[in-house]
Amino acid sequence: MPIVRDQWYVAAYGAEVTREFLARTICNEPIVFYRTEDGAPVALADRCVHRRFPLSQSRLDGDRVVCGYHGFTYEPSGACVYVPGQQRIPRTARVASYPVVEQDSFIWVFIGDPQLAEQRPIPRAPWLNPDSGYVTVAGMEPIKGRYSLLVDNLLDLSHETYLHGGYIGTPEVAETPIETSVDEQTGLVRVSRRMQDAECPPFYAKSTGLTDRISRWQDIEYHAPCLYLLHSRIAPVGSVPNPDGTDPEGFHTEITYAITPETDNSVLDFWMVSRDFAREDADVTEFLAKFNHTVVMQDVDALNILEGVIETEPEGFQELSINIDAGGLAARKVLKRLAEAAA
Amino acid sequence: MPIVRDQWYVAAYGAEVTREFLARTICNEPIVFYRTEDGAPVALADRCVHRRFPLSQSRLDGDRVVCGYHGFTYEPSGACVYVPGQQRIPRTARVASYPVVEQDSFIWVFIGDPQLAEQRPIPRAPWLNPDSGYVTVAGMEPIKGRYSLLVDNLLDLSHETYLHGGYIGTPEVAETPIETSVDEQTGLVRVSRRMQDAECPPFYAKSTGLTDRISRWQDIEYHAPCLYLLHSRIAPVGSVPNPDGTDPEGFHTEITYAITPETDNSVLDFWMVSRDFAREDADVTEFLAKFNHTVVMQDVDALNILEGVIETEPEGFQELSINIDAGGLAARKVLKRLAEAAA
Amino acid sequence: MPIVRDQWYVAAYGAEVTREFLARTICNEPIVFYRTEDGAPVALADRCVHRRFPLSQSRLDGDRVVCGYHGFTYEPSGACVYVPGQQRIPRTARVASYPVVEQDSFIWVFIGDPQLAEQRPIPRAPWLNPDSGYVTVAGMEPIKGRYSLLVDNLLDLSHETYLHGGYIGTPEVAETPIETSVDEQTGLVRVSRRMQDAECPPFYAKSTGLTDRISRWQDIEYHAPCLYLLHSRIAPVGSVPNPDGTDPEGFHTEITYAITPETDNSVLDFWMVSRDFAREDADVTEFLAKFNHTVVMQDVDALNILEGVIETEPEGFQELSINIDAGGLAARKVLKRLAEAAA
Repeated sequence: MPIVRDQWYVAAYGAEVTREFLARTICNEPIVFYRTEDGAPVALADRCVHRRFPLSQSRLDGDRVVCGYHGFTYEPSGACVYVPGQQRIPRTARVASYPVVEQDSFIWVFIGDPQLAEQRPIPRAPWLNPDSGYVTVAGMEPIKGRYSLLVDNLLDLSHETYLHGGYIGTPEVAETPIETSVDEQTGLVRVSRRMQDAECPPFYAKSTGLTDRISRWQDIEYHAPCLYLLHSRIAPVGSVPNPDGTDPEGFHTEITYAITPETDNSVLDFWMVSRDFAREDADVTEFLAKFNHTVVMQDVDALNILEGVIETEPEGFQELSINIDAGGLAARKVLKRLAEAAA
Repeated sequence: MPIVRDQWYVAAYGAEVTREFLARTICNEPIVFYRTEDGAPVALADRCVHRRFPLSQSRLDGDRVVCGYHGFTYEPSGACVYVPGQQRIPRTARVASYPVVEQDSFIWVFIGDPQLAEQRPIPRAPWLNPDSGYVTVAGMEPIKGRYSLLVDNLLDLSHETYLHGGYIGTPEVAETPIETSVDEQTGLVRVSRRMQDAECPPFYAKSTGLTDRISRWQDIEYHAPCLYLLHSRIAPVGSVPNPDGTDPEGFHTEITYAITPETDNSVLDFWMVSRDFAREDADVTEFLAKFNHTVVMQDVDALNILEGVIETEPEGFQELSINIDAGGLAARKVLKRLAEAAA
Repeated sequence: MPIVRDQWYVAAYGAEVTREFLARTICNEPIVFYRTEDGAPVALADRCVHRRFPLSQSRLDGDRVVCGYHGFTYEPSGACVYVPGQQRIPRTARVASYPVVEQDSFIWVFIGDPQLAEQRPIPRAPWLNPDSGYVTVAGMEPIKGRYSLLVDNLLDLSHETYLHGGYIGTPEVAETPIETSVDEQTGLVRVSRRMQDAECPPFYAKSTGLTDRISRWQDIEYHAPCLYLLHSRIAPVGSVPNPDGTDPEGFHTEITYAITPETDNSVLDFWMVSRDFAREDADVTEFLAKFNHTVVMQDVDALNILEGVIETEPEGFQELSINIDAGGLAARKVLKRLAEAAA
């Protein structure tokens, strides 16, 4: 699955971008991130035009970047304003500047033709904002595996039963059929698994106090290529939201992943868990942070292994797909279409 | 030298295959080994048919393997008997099962077309069995070098004088000419070096008590591609076996190597030393185990170095072969013929 | 920039070549260095002709090298004088012997057609000899970067201001224009930067006692491909050498680099700093050794980074060159011409 260009990607959490340089490779492009003195995020190609020294190895002079090798100096726009040993600045002395948007706790960067940036909507995750009524735990794990492995992983939650057994998986997850749909217009992939009478996994029992059997809904929205949302609702068996949308008996967890290809064979796995219950309970927050990190690391380990398998296997291995893969296969189709459109 | 397919290879010592999975790559094929509850060894392709997750990262349910990612479940035959989220098992849901035979302390696995497994005889090393009258010390070392380097090494024992000088080598080994023959029918390579009046190397002096000069015979049988036997006899100078085969003055050591290609550039070096003397003497056993491990590691180090040399050298390096290489060259010819026959 | 063959290269400092083997790769050729019992340096191809075992893993028997694998034995000339198991030495049993010259504290080795060795003059650095009136501190750092990166680095000293800011760099270095010339006959590249009224950097203030502003001359002579000389003179502002060449007010530092390609992507960076002042002062010697090592490591770190950048960047990156690069571009042109002449 090729990397899809002409798209917005999550490059970092907002808090990661400061007055110190952050070097990150996004879709094979080395980029340096920092903030101006006014706090605006900046994203520049991380290579000096002179002898390609990484600007992230440089220093800031106000809002300007001074290359650490020979002193070429750049504005946040990428324009070069100083070169050593002469007054004239060559006309082509300019590094690429990337469109950036700070939104929903993320620094989004546009990879591809910058002219197209404004036309592409950036998907939203409003519960990540401080005033949203949700409390969020979050992290980021680099994975030495192609991004399509993470898409596969997240679009098919039946793996929870096995890879995360004893954590978030129960037999019902693997056994309950899914409903999959694709919005052909936007490429949004939806995968829904609604368990009406299921065991309450330890993860949720501990954080909600529900110990009897539960109604458990998992509604995935995958905004290809980067943003994955899992709307999770658990409630006592038989409880449904009110017709006006209120849902006093439900416990809502918004699980957000940003899937950002780093290189052809690695991906940045940004993960967040936001809840609207037990918001003041620091123990629950700490538990969720630790617990979810464990679950994410189980995925990381599995995908690192799979990448190793793929890289050493002979050409022409044929996967076998079954019903649970409908979401993942739909996502692959959307990604393929997007990649072709960008090429 | 390509890897020879349609052949039996030693995959493990019997004791290595248990109710825990053993993952091993044999001739570039990832295989998982385990035993059923009845103790029968099983060898399956170490890749789930669904998303290629290694089955060795899974768990056993009785005799069945349950994939650790999504729960695909396999019989020892390789047949899939469960997939998540649906009742119907796809007809093609099956992993390859390899022919295995447990014999002479080894787990042999057949690499290639399983239909040919029965036609190919498995060479024997009966002294490795508990009731053989021999006591054996053994080990296995993975070498980061192509298997042909180990074949070269073992077929030409003149290197004992230099690489293992002070251990098993003495000047006579390098100086004594060899006799080489090939059984064209079976491809068996024989290399014989019979020293009638030689120094007794420390290795043997220590374990037999012979300190004067000795008659020392080294009779190699190489059953290409995998099994290498070195029949070693030492005795006082002038002593020969009786016409009826008995040999009361001789000390016999059966040195067995299984040469199992792991990948194109690595090999598993199974080594065993079996003796028919001082069988009850634990000190001799301990000495032989430690001493032979040292000698094997001298070979391992040398072959790791040689592989590094080959991988960085320009194309077209020409080796220079001399008389001592007759056995190794004969082995190469046999291996080439076997590889062509299998291709 | 390809490696230039048919040239003399510095392989080692004389003191590195002893009765123990020194294995070093020069211009992609593995070579073993040692001294005969008479102290003469020897350079042989580090591969036995038999099975390519590195001779550097062998032992010396007098002046002869005995291969550690099967005992093939070589004279310093490369001629084989013993093989195991037979009397006849094959006519082709010979390893390549390289022309070597010990001069100015270096072991020089000729890479290419040995017939051409005598025609090629070896550039001199007489201040490195014990009786020269100079005191030298020296070191060698292997760099995981192609040698052309080190040539670029050394031919353009404006980087001192940025990469070595606070060490040897001051603003004047980057600001002062350079004069560049090439001797078309010999390929010698000269780059001169003469600052008539400059800040005295801490490096020199500490070692000369000059603290006011200074006259600072940096006269580079690059004898492509291997020897780089930087004649540095500092003196009080306005002071010039006498017409007879004496220069009592000047402090002279001869900075010598030998730039020896190890492989296509790595280089050996031999560095020396020789001074004609404060010669008895051990503190100055210690300071210079430590200080210059720090400066060299700043270069090493930068070039390691640049090599990583080049190896992962897409094809077709275009550098932007300015006036300060005149020396480096001239050197590239000379190297290209030399490489073409040798090919």
